[in-house]
Amino acid sequence: MKDQYLELDPWQILEKEWNPNKVTASESIFSLGNGAMGQRANFEEKYSGDHFQGSYVGGVYYPDKTKVGWWKNGYPEYFAKVLNAPNWIGIEIQIEGVSLDLATCQVHHFTRTLDMKSGVYSRDFEITTANGIRLQVVSKRFLSLQRTEVGALEYSVTPLEDDVAISFTSYIDGGIKNQDSNWDDPFWEAVAQKASSSVSVLLNRTHKTEFGVCTYMANSLSIDATTKINDSTIVEEPNRISETFAHRTAKGSTATLFKVGGYLSTLNHEESQLFSAASEVAEAAQDDGFEVLLAEQQKAWKQIWDMADIKIEGDIASQQAIRFNIFQLNQTYNGTDARLNIGPKGFTGEKYGGSTYWDTEAYCLPFYMATKPQSVARNLLQYRYQQLDKAIENAEKLGFKKGAALYPMVTMNGEECHNEWEITFEEIHRNGAIAFAIFNYVRYTADWNYIPEMGLEVLIGIARFWAQRLSWSSEKEKYVMLGVTGPNEYENNINNNWYTNYLAQWCLHYTSSQLAEVAAKAPNDHARITAKTALKEEEVNQWKEIGEAIYFPRSEKHDVFLQQDGFLDKEMIPVSEIDPAERPLNQYWSWDRILRSPYIKQADTLQGFYLFEDHFTQEELQKHYLFYEPFTVHESSLSPCIHAILAAKLDRMEEAYAFYLRTSRLDLDDYNKEVHEGLHITSMAGTWMSVVEGFGGLRMVNEQLYLTPKLPKKWNSFSFKILFRGAVLEVHTHKNETNLIWNGEKPLSVFLNGEETTVSR
Amino acid sequence: MKDQYLELDPWQILEKEWNPNKVTASESIFSLGNGAMGQRANFEEKYSGDHFQGSYVGGVYYPDKTKVGWWKNGYPEYFAKVLNAPNWIGIEIQIEGVSLDLATCQVHHFTRTLDMKSGVYSRDFEITTANGIRLQVVSKRFLSLQRTEVGALEYSVTPLEDDVAISFTSYIDGGIKNQDSNWDDPFWEAVAQKASSSVSVLLNRTHKTEFGVCTYMANSLSIDATTKINDSTIVEEPNRISETFAHRTAKGSTATLFKVGGYLSTLNHEESQLFSAASEVAEAAQDDGFEVLLAEQQKAWKQIWDMADIKIEGDIASQQAIRFNIFQLNQTYNGTDARLNIGPKGFTGEKYGGSTYWDTEAYCLPFYMATKPQSVARNLLQYRYQQLDKAIENAEKLGFKKGAALYPMVTMNGEECHNEWEITFEEIHRNGAIAFAIFNYVRYTADWNYIPEMGLEVLIGIARFWAQRLSWSSEKEKYVMLGVTGPNEYENNINNNWYTNYLAQWCLHYTSSQLAEVAAKAPNDHARITAKTALKEEEVNQWKEIGEAIYFPRSEKHDVFLQQDGFLDKEMIPVSEIDPAERPLNQYWSWDRILRSPYIKQADTLQGFYLFEDHFTQEELQKHYLFYEPFTVHESSLSPCIHAILAAKLDRMEEAYAFYLRTSRLDLDDYNKEVHEGLHITSMAGTWMSVVEGFGGLRMVNEQLYLTPKLPKKWNSFSFKILFRGAVLEVHTHKNETNLIWNGEKPLSVFLNGEETTVSR
Repeated sequence: MKDQYLELDPWQILEKEWNPNKVTASESIFSLGNGAMGQRANFEEKYSGDHFQGSYVGGVYYPDKTKVGWWKNGYPEYFAKVLNAPNWIGIEIQIEGVSLDLATCQVHHFTRTLDMKSGVYSRDFEITTANGIRLQVVSKRFLSLQRTEVGALEYSVTPLEDDVAISFTSYIDGGIKNQDSNWDDPFWEAVAQKASSSVSVLLNRTHKTEFGVCTYMANSLSIDATTKINDSTIVEEPNRISETFAHRTAKGSTATLFKVGGYLSTLNHEESQLFSAASEVAEAAQDDGFEVLLAEQQKAWKQIWDMADIKIEGDIASQQAIRFNIFQLNQTYNGTDARLNIGPKGFTGEKYGGSTYWDTEAYCLPFYMATKPQSVARNLLQYRYQQLDKAIENAEKLGFKKGAALYPMVTMNGEECHNEWEITFEEIHRNGAIAFAIFNYVRYTADWNYIPEMGLEVLIGIARFWAQRLSWSSEKEKYVMLGVTGPNEYENNINNNWYTNYLAQWCLHYTSSQLAEVAAKAPNDHARITAKTALKEEEVNQWKEIGEAIYFPRSEKHDVFLQQDGFLDKEMIPVSEIDPAERPLNQYWSWDRILRSPYIKQADTLQGFYLFEDHFTQEELQKHYLFYEPFTVHESSLSPCIHAILAAKLDRMEEAYAFYLRTSRLDLDDYNKEVHEGLHITSMAGTWMSVVEGFGGLRMVNEQLYLTPKLPKKWNSFSFKILFRGAVLEVHTHKNETNLIWNGEKPLSVFLNGEETTVSR
Repeated sequence: MKDQYLELDPWQILEKEWNPNKVTASESIFSLGNGAMGQRANFEEKYSGDHFQGSYVGGVYYPDKTKVGWWKNGYPEYFAKVLNAPNWIGIEIQIEGVSLDLATCQVHHFTRTLDMKSGVYSRDFEITTANGIRLQVVSKRFLSLQRTEVGALEYSVTPLEDDVAISFTSYIDGGIKNQDSNWDDPFWEAVAQKASSSVSVLLNRTHKTEFGVCTYMANSLSIDATTKINDSTIVEEPNRISETFAHRTAKGSTATLFKVGGYLSTLNHEESQLFSAASEVAEAAQDDGFEVLLAEQQKAWKQIWDMADIKIEGDIASQQAIRFNIFQLNQTYNGTDARLNIGPKGFTGEKYGGSTYWDTEAYCLPFYMATKPQSVARNLLQYRYQQLDKAIENAEKLGFKKGAALYPMVTMNGEECHNEWEITFEEIHRNGAIAFAIFNYVRYTADWNYIPEMGLEVLIGIARFWAQRLSWSSEKEKYVMLGVTGPNEYENNINNNWYTNYLAQWCLHYTSSQLAEVAAKAPNDHARITAKTALKEEEVNQWKEIGEAIYFPRSEKHDVFLQQDGFLDKEMIPVSEIDPAERPLNQYWSWDRILRSPYIKQADTLQGFYLFEDHFTQEELQKHYLFYEPFTVHESSLSPCIHAILAAKLDRMEEAYAFYLRTSRLDLDDYNKEVHEGLHITSMAGTWMSVVEGFGGLRMVNEQLYLTPKLPKKWNSFSFKILFRGAVLEVHTHKNETNLIWNGEKPLSVFLNGEETTVSR
């Protein structure tokens, strides 16, 4: 099922041939981002073959009116869509008057490289153009981490056989449409534009949300890096500005266009200031030049890698893959802006609208927590705190009362944006992941103050939701949770999903215990919060009572908790017996057949064993793993990583390694035949977990750090670092030996392979 | 919740005031149809107020591309939509150069009448126009039952105070769009047109399906029914033809336009012949004149009423309502064309696309069977026989094999047209209704030959579906049916819906028994059918084995079958305790809340007790009725009729009467605030059942007729007729006495009030 057309390399993603049928796939894989903006690896020059132009600005979205066949009460009016933004990279190249277009050239050699060490995307190709002219072309592009509103590119053309008339028409173009749009609404309005040979700017404003975005460019052309060509012609059209440099370039000489461009938005500037701010930013970048910007970029990436790199020896496929995952995560989100979050496809495509899912809390938080300053993880939590009012409104729309909060399945600004009833209204376990993230953050960072400051209010809203959502069954004499969808979306509208019930119970208990702790340690905060939320003791008592009487479906025969009521009524045929030609099921089976089957899209009961592993014995884990794994099809990108972690814990290292490859090389090897739509960004954090928590065995139990490193057979060694309570712990594992290096002031106590160990500086 | 603005009358629907805010409601209620075409009661003249123009041709549809937020494997590509057809009734009236438009007139009195005895819709109103002219207007319109391609109307204007210049611009207009359209596609193409003072015609063709429809008109104007005005002006525009008659009409004189119009389609003619056929039809009708056509119409309706009328004395609301229901059923479908069927809104609106639902078999068949020649019910069965191949294809799309057939939830030509997974893929009980209809038809008509001719093949396909759809539960050691939606659509994707399981069991047994009967009585047919369907004895044995081991959820405590697995886990609060301000639930509660609740949209377990009442004792029925009725919200139009029948059987006459009013006056009193969208045609057959099977107690057990008439308190008497095996049985009930009149050759044996009675001519 794998599709390997890329080369293996520890630090680079490499495509060494011209693959016209892989252009959209490579556009995804070679994507660039700097947290504030991102873009697919589109060509700068014209390309008439199949491609998918995409460039996106973080936090800028459009509420696209909901499209649905049959409306259900409670559906949201719109789905917030990340916006395909104006194009600033475009350069039309004319060679003796004919457009350079790879689709019409003879390509002699072609190399495409994504250098993960420095965050630079480049192409180097030799072609004979449609009009018979042989050229060498080199393009390099990056989005500056240092200057988040700046992208830079260098585009060089070298005639190989004759002197050639070359013109570079560099442009910015506001006439861009989303590929993913419900009604073909125009998302952008053209507001203003200003052309000049120093900096040209467009001002576009989103309809409805009225984000103002200024797209700019500043260009210069030089020959052989020495002669600067100052003559240019500027053409202004509605919502488009171009600047053309023409030069007859001698055989062997190189004409190089240096272009800076990017976006400034009203997220960070007054709309009236956008043009002047853009001019400043652009002029500074153009003056500093490509090399200075590049040096900054290399330095910034070095800082990231110094902390976040994972070294794997003996297995280049594993090494390349983990770096690719870490690289893309850092391109997508850097944690400096609490208004932003991590969309499932980051800036690499439009599917899922670029909005926030439970992926953030359940998968991404551990990565950012361990590789970034504490403020980054705190920002991610704060994002939800800021949206608490909207979560309460959302729950009210569904009939819940008195401050119960239901966080949306998909959101941009806190409002629900998804419209499948079985997901929107029923996949409510997301609420638990948001509470768990608070717990996880506090146990890891020991920043307990987050609880009285913000966390407790979120927990109260969530606890209230569960207390209202659970209902009393006179039949079972227990509280039951009817009509839910668990993480395994191949079951819909089920009763008593074990994972959801367990999470709900945990939320009720944890909220109660945190309330007590805040009452004891921060009585003023306790008074403020209980007043604000009108919380009475009897309500908390009721939570405890409900929490203690929740029903959990269980099979005595198999000695396991059941994924949901009636799970064993299914035809329990393991995945291994399904005809491989019918896989993935979601492409071959009708939806009802999938629902009736026992097949599990992604870890569900096992997701609970992952989150709460310290609640269960190794034997219990093993029983559940052996029971559920044979039915799991891993058709969600979020599944193999959890199974990798659990398999490693159970010493099933071959399986763990196979799951690791599947999660880490999901996009590089295009397992699901969908990489052209964009990358699976949030699951990349799961890949990181599969190494650090799986092979590294990193976990926290009662605020105590545990490490149990285990090497897959193919690996000679691996090492990673984590930022832990303000200092760095390095973990180097070679064969059965692990060395820990700690740079904290105070010694660190770690349970290494079960033995309590103290690591000093 | 009722909204009564119409007058009570035994034979007429009457609106005696001008209600501008009721125009769309009245357009539905006063709708006309003749089985082949139908239309809402739109005004002929211009109306600038809120209205919903609608005219429809039976069997002519457009496959509208599916609109859905999130695609699920197995969804159909399109939804067949009944088409809003060109307008042929339009007459623009100019009074001294100003348009007559009720929205701008002063209305002195206004009466609107639907005379059910003759099928004529009329209006009589006195107005002062916007330019101050007082007029009397009378319009009469009907769609000929005799000549199904002809509609006729007379439009008379009488100046009351002065001589007035009046012009009548009669037109046909092809520029009509569906109100219900997914993508605003154009449904019709204008192909040709021909204008003349005798007959004008338009030819429109539907996109994709390429039905050709010719719309025509022929006009004449006379003064005081004596002077004919021959001068007219014809104007041709693209897709529109108009003919204008102008005449200065003296005070007290009446100018009357007589217009015939309607549709001829390629269902019945070659496209190339449409214009000439239309001219013939139109000229003949125009020559015969309004009075001749009207006399035919009265005669045709008299024939219908002679057989189908139900007389109720002592309660005019009941009398009017039952006639309204019978009238609309006869307007919608007359059974002469096996290609047609009965859409839930008939020709009165566009919702539900005008397609065929299980309503036909479960609700409509008994009415047509008892009031029309046997061929009509047979045509309804044959409709499904003709679509058996498509039902097999439909099942294949969902992964079923070897000739298993799943009839679509919604269809026009046999292909599935609905796209909600929980309905399309899971509301499979429809398949059982289609099998039951065969059984019901045979037991009522004794036309057993239908089984070897066509019925058995349908039964085999259906039995195969159930055998494959049921799956073995090792846990329960029974066959279970997972992931279904029962008739109660307020539960989705449930397991072991009792009604569906029971119906499946019955289908398996009935198919086996019919196979044996065909083998015994028609061995050649048996050989032909088993060869055609490749049916082996072992498969039939397997059906029996499965049928005997089906699981039925049951509560021992309540001594009832449970609607589905886990039903008692719900919070069992009866409907009576819900705040009335939250009713109907489907307008106030979010979808998930409805799903979690115990509230039943329409009879579900009780639907099974209705179909198979002879399988259960009166005591069992009572237990189930008392258990389920308190949770039933009757938010489907198909619910109150079933409860009326069961309540009557249980001697709960007050309840039965309340349910009767609710089903029979649903549209007249607009219980659900939606009559403006169209009428609930299929549930009208349920109304008929509530009288004949409910109050009349008509039922068949083992091919034996039972009658147990019971009078609601308000009724002095009621009487109805049924066509039974070629002769007519009249049932007259007065107080506690019932008289039967039978016109059959041979005496008829009936169990009247439980006593076997023989009725002779």
